[in-house]
This record gives sequence, structure tokens and C-alpha cells, in this order.
Amino acid sequence: MKNEKILTREDSVGIVETKYFTFDNIALEHGDKFGPITLAYEIYGELNKEKSNAILILHALSGDAHAAGVHEGKNNPGWWDSMIGSTKAFDTDKYFVICSNVLGGCKGSTGPSSLNPKTSNPYALDFPQISINDMVDAQKRLIDYLGIEKLLTVVGGSMGGMQVLSWLIKYPERIRSIIPIATAVKHSPQQIAFNEVGRQAIMADPNWKSGNYYGAALPAKGLAVARMIGHITYMSDVSMAEKFGRAKKNGAQPFKFTADFEVEGYLRYRGDNFVKRFDANSYLYITKALDNFDASGGRPFHEVLEGIRTKALVIAFKSDWLYPAYQAKEIVKAFKLSGIEASYCEIDSTYGHDAFLLEIEEETHLIKHFLKKIFYKYEVTGDYQI
Amino acid sequence: MKNEKILTREDSVGIVETKYFTFDNIALEHGDKFGPITLAYEIYGELNKEKSNAILILHALSGDAHAAGVHEGKNNPGWWDSMIGSTKAFDTDKYFVICSNVLGGCKGSTGPSSLNPKTSNPYALDFPQISINDMVDAQKRLIDYLGIEKLLTVVGGSMGGMQVLSWLIKYPERIRSIIPIATAVKHSPQQIAFNEVGRQAIMADPNWKSGNYYGAALPAKGLAVARMIGHITYMSDVSMAEKFGRAKKNGAQPFKFTADFEVEGYLRYRGDNFVKRFDANSYLYITKALDNFDASGGRPFHEVLEGIRTKALVIAFKSDWLYPAYQAKEIVKAFKLSGIEASYCEIDSTYGHDAFLLEIEEETHLIKHFLKKIFYKYEVTGDYQI
Repeated sequence: MKNEKILTREDSVGIVETKYFTFDNIALEHGDKFGPITLAYEIYGELNKEKSNAILILHALSGDAHAAGVHEGKNNPGWWDSMIGSTKAFDTDKYFVICSNVLGGCKGSTGPSSLNPKTSNPYALDFPQISINDMVDAQKRLIDYLGIEKLLTVVGGSMGGMQVLSWLIKYPERIRSIIPIATAVKHSPQQIAFNEVGRQAIMADPNWKSGNYYGAALPAKGLAVARMIGHITYMSDVSMAEKFGRAKKNGAQPFKFTADFEVEGYLRYRGDNFVKRFDANSYLYITKALDNFDASGGRPFHEVLEGIRTKALVIAFKSDWLYPAYQAKEIVKAFKLSGIEASYCEIDSTYGHDAFLLEIEEETHLIKHFLKKIFYKYEVTGDYQI
Repeated sequence: MKNEKILTREDSVGIVETKYFTFDNIALEHGDKFGPITLAYEIYGELNKEKSNAILILHALSGDAHAAGVHEGKNNPGWWDSMIGSTKAFDTDKYFVICSNVLGGCKGSTGPSSLNPKTSNPYALDFPQISINDMVDAQKRLIDYLGIEKLLTVVGGSMGGMQVLSWLIKYPERIRSIIPIATAVKHSPQQIAFNEVGRQAIMADPNWKSGNYYGAALPAKGLAVARMIGHITYMSDVSMAEKFGRAKKNGAQPFKFTADFEVEGYLRYRGDNFVKRFDANSYLYITKALDNFDASGGRPFHEVLEGIRTKALVIAFKSDWLYPAYQAKEIVKAFKLSGIEASYCEIDSTYGHDAFLLEIEEETHLIKHFLKKIFYKYEVTGDYQI
């Protein structure tokens, strides 16, 4: 009874439900008004009467709103389950935690696989270009709807961290602190290049059909290759060596381009698995949003931050070569230059970029301490402007 | 008159011709005897009467026999033209330089695109599994044919470096020194993973047809994606940033998954270009040979080297993250442990793995000095066993 075991675990938030918020439209960064928009989200813990304990969690490229607990009848702990719950980093005994899916995604929010109300067919490539800032504009509508004037913190890793930076610049008056993790002000050409190869792999798949594959065969092989590239960049040389070494797969034939090495079998498995749960067009739209994002808007980042007051905890990981620590340091440097109070921690992990999902103990320690200071100070002073 | 300019350049070897050597067969590492085999090769400079000045140059994954000079009527300088010629690193006034293509390739040597004499059709996947050691066995036959008892040095970068290590282990009595560059005793799981994704991209292309695409549409998109992945790993984060930054392409439309960034356009160009000059099945066979290579045979590498005497210059590059310097240091450590006289140099380059093709000045300096010592000592002592 695996499921029961999880459900009765003291620190789990237990059974949760994905909710959906639909609203009229937003003005897109690169276009006109677009809507209606539905956002999938989940909530954990209770909003206090001052509405001062709300935390917004933002996910990475392939994540979703299901960050903690399990769904009724399923043994599917959320993607950051070990971070959210009673006594955990995001302690649901104290805080009200919201996790929002992104515009453009395929996990219950409006994206290219959603039905276009004008045609009753999926949008496919008629879906408009979206940006990280658009994702945040949609989330802001959700936070309005939930009646939260000021978020205690906004936190996320990787693409989630980019959304955190966008929140900071677009809606500084709505947040008291931020925790960007394993992220960057903007993608380097190397980061763009990896995404571009993934996109090319999808678009090279004849089943992609310029995005019009809904109801037909999926561009499964192309999407699997894209995901395999992703997985290599999420791990580190060291973590791969520790996990696989040069071990050969059981029963692998010596030849004909089968998966001889365990690392090959793992990548194929992860690639094939991804196809079942992610939409290829969403992958194209979201990776383009990532590549185009530039929190600095082409100016020195610290200038963009001028006048913004917040408290920041910036976390990076030593072996993360996809979002190397130097990118986190650029964020911290701009924060310091602009007068934002920032703590920086580079966690000595071998997990690579995946570390933000795996270094639970270290992250918990840092985040608990950070939140306690901010929340306690607010409770004592009642002052939003800390 | 671009061509003339190159042809009259004082230090060019001038017009050269690719030659072909065909022999009966070799016993494959993972199978039976295989043949007939043709190897494409080129030669530059003159063999001295003692036959003591011969240098064997071995190329990387996508290289060929054309390492220096130009072909009649073409402006196509060889891939290491700046290293081979009068007064250059491999000085053709002093040395006799041979560059051999590899078994399994598609540049004039026997490979999967060659005609199977039994069927008069291309081998395709009936081509046997080949190894780095098999490539070297074939080259050894070429060196026999050229009448060279002992090579002054065997040198190569990347896959060429693996062939150098194979030469050292299989035919130590036939070489006086080695120069392995930007290479490894064996691939790490990360290196295997990048190759595997490239293979998956090729095999995902419906034109691949289990390798039977000859005379029909090529698996061009799959091979282009494989090459794009390769190119990312050949450059460094820094060299990409220096070369492209986040510059947008001229005239790029803002959307619909066109190549917006220069780095995207570059990768697409390099990918598409590769398709014109390389065979997808060769890519599969050669990358498998790379992944399966293990100069240590699963033992501590220094034990395999026991009793072998040679002089080695091992070169690595600081920003090379595909073949990181720690792999070169493993080679050097084993050399030292086994009593092989080894010099190690880590060149402070930002070019990534590509540095072995680009850091001409540094490499020239190191290699000239190394060769001079070895050749001079031989000339003075006449002793092969130095």
C-alpha cells in the first residue's frame, strides 16, 4: 500500500486538487490582448487573516501546478513535495503556498494544445508568442483573484527563477522577498543553442507537421530527442559518472545501435516517458520564451532594479553547468549595486542543474532561515516596507 | 584569385592528392576477418633514407585524410593546414607526414556507404562493428606498406588522440613518441550521452530506414541535429558568448520558430552543411567506436602500459568541457606510473574542444620543441630505443 504510506506521512500535505482560474485576457509583450486564459494552480496550507503568509512557487520548463501532496487515488507526489509541508522548507503550518502553472504550458493552463474558442480546434501554431513576462502577468491575475495584496515570497528554480526576476521587475510592490534558484538574468548563447537543437529535433520529426499533429500521430521521436538533450544538461559529468559509470545494460546486444550503456537506456527511457506527458508545441513556445527572456532589457541589470526594495536569497549549485554559478553571481552583483539586500549561497552539489530538485536538506536550511527572518519581522513590525 | 594566393603561400605544402591503399583484410576486434579494406591517405614532405622522419597524423570524428595543402583546382586547405608545412609544427622540410582516414568513414576509406563486393550494394548496417583498435590495425597495414618500421611520432586530437593511445598499446615497437591531444582513455557517461542523442536523432529520421537510405532521400534532418549537438560540445560557453552573444540575426522575424539568434543560424548552417559531406551511417558506426573505446581495457591504465617505453607530449585545453583536462591528467598519471616519460601542457584557451584545431601558435611551439628533441637525439645516437 505505497499510496497509503505517502498519504499518512506526517509531513505530507496529503490529498490535494488542481484548481483552475479562468480570466478574460492579458496584453501580451509581443502582441495584442490574448484570452481567455486558464491557469492551473494548487494551494497548500491556510491563508492567515492578514493575508501576509502567501508564498508563490514557480516551476521549471516541464513542471506543473502539482508541487506537493498527492491527487485522490494516485501515488503522485508533487515535484517539490519534499520542500512543501508541515515543518518543511515551505512550512504549511505557517505559510499559504500557491503553485501556478504557466501560460503556454500543457498541464491544464492555456497553451498551444488548448482549443481556440474561435475555431474549436487546438491553437497549434496560431497560439501567439508568449514571454516569461506574460506568464507572470497571468500569475498576477491569479494572485489578484486570490485576494493577496503582497506575497511573502516568490520562489522558483531554473525557468521558475526567471519568473521570479520578472515578478520583481514588473510587480515589486506585490512582493516582500524573492528566492531565485539556479537561474539567470538571460540565457547565454550556449543555453539558447541547447534549446535550439531541441526545437530542431521536434521540427525535424515529420509527425510535427508544422504543429498540426493534434488528433494524429505525435512527433514523439523528435520530442524524445529534445528531452534527452535536456537531461544531459540537467545532470553533471560527475553525477552521470556516479549514477551510470560505463556500466553496460543487462542483456544488451553488443551491436546494431541498441542501448549498450546504462546511460543510453536511461536517456531513452526518460525521452520516451516525456512524450506521454508533454506537448511538443508547448516545448517550442516555452523554450523560445526562455531564450528571449532578458530581465535586464538590454541595459545594465542594476539600472532596471533602481528604486526596487526587496530581500533576496539567491541560490546556485557548483556543478550546474547549464545555469552556471557565474550567472547567479551576476544577479547578486546587480542586487547589491541597486541596494537590494541579497544573500548568495552556492551549494556544493554534484547533481548539476537537477540539484535544485534534489539538494533538499541544504535548500531547506537556507530557505527556512530566510523566510523566518522576513515573516517574523513583518509580524512584529506590521510593516510591509521591510 | 583566392586559390593562387594559397598555392603560392610560402609555407603551404601546395597541391596534394589523396591516395588510396587497398589490402586484403584485418581481424576485427568484435568479429571475424573483414575486407577488402581501402584507406584514403595523404602524404606531405619526403621520407628520408633512414625512414626515421615519418609522422602519422590521425583525425577526429568528422575529419579526413586531407590535412594540408589544397587539391588541384580547389581552394580547400586541409583541416590542419596551419600545422603542416615548411617551418610549421610538422615541418615538411624535416619530416615526412602521413594523414590517414579511418576505417568506417566516408571520405574514401571503406565504410558503411562503400559497396559490399558480395552484393554490389552499399553495406549499410551489414557493415561490421568497428573499433578504434580496428582503425589502428588498418593504419598499421598502411604504415607497413609505406615501408616505415618506426614512426617518429603519432599525433591526433579528440578521436585522433584515442587512435594514438591505441597505437601505443597495440604497436609500441613501431613508434618513438606520441602526442595525444584533447582526448581520453575512455568516454565518460556524459560523452557517451551526447553521442547517443546524436545517434537517436539520426535513427529518428524516417529517411534513415534502418540504414538503407543510399540512392534515396538522406536522413538529413536527423544528421543535422546530431551535428548541431556536436558543435555545441565543441565550443565553450565563453567562445559562444564571444562569437555570438545574444545578437539577433539580420532580418529574422520575431516569431514562428525561425532562427532569431545568430547562434541558432550558425548551428543550423553547420548542421545542414555537414549533411552534404558526411554519411549518417558512418556517424553511427564511428561514434559507437568512440563510446566503446577503453584504452585501459577495464584495468588500471598504467598496468596496461607496463613495459612500454615512449616519449609523450599530452595536451589539453582549459575550456574543453567535452574532453575535460582531468581526462588528460588521467593519461599523464598513468604514463608517469608506468615509467613513460610524459610532458603535460594545459593550454589556457577559451575555444573549448575546438581549440586543438585553433590554438595553432601554442601547439606549434610545444610540438616543434618536442619533436626537435626526439628527432635530434635519434640523429645523434642512431638509437631507436630512446
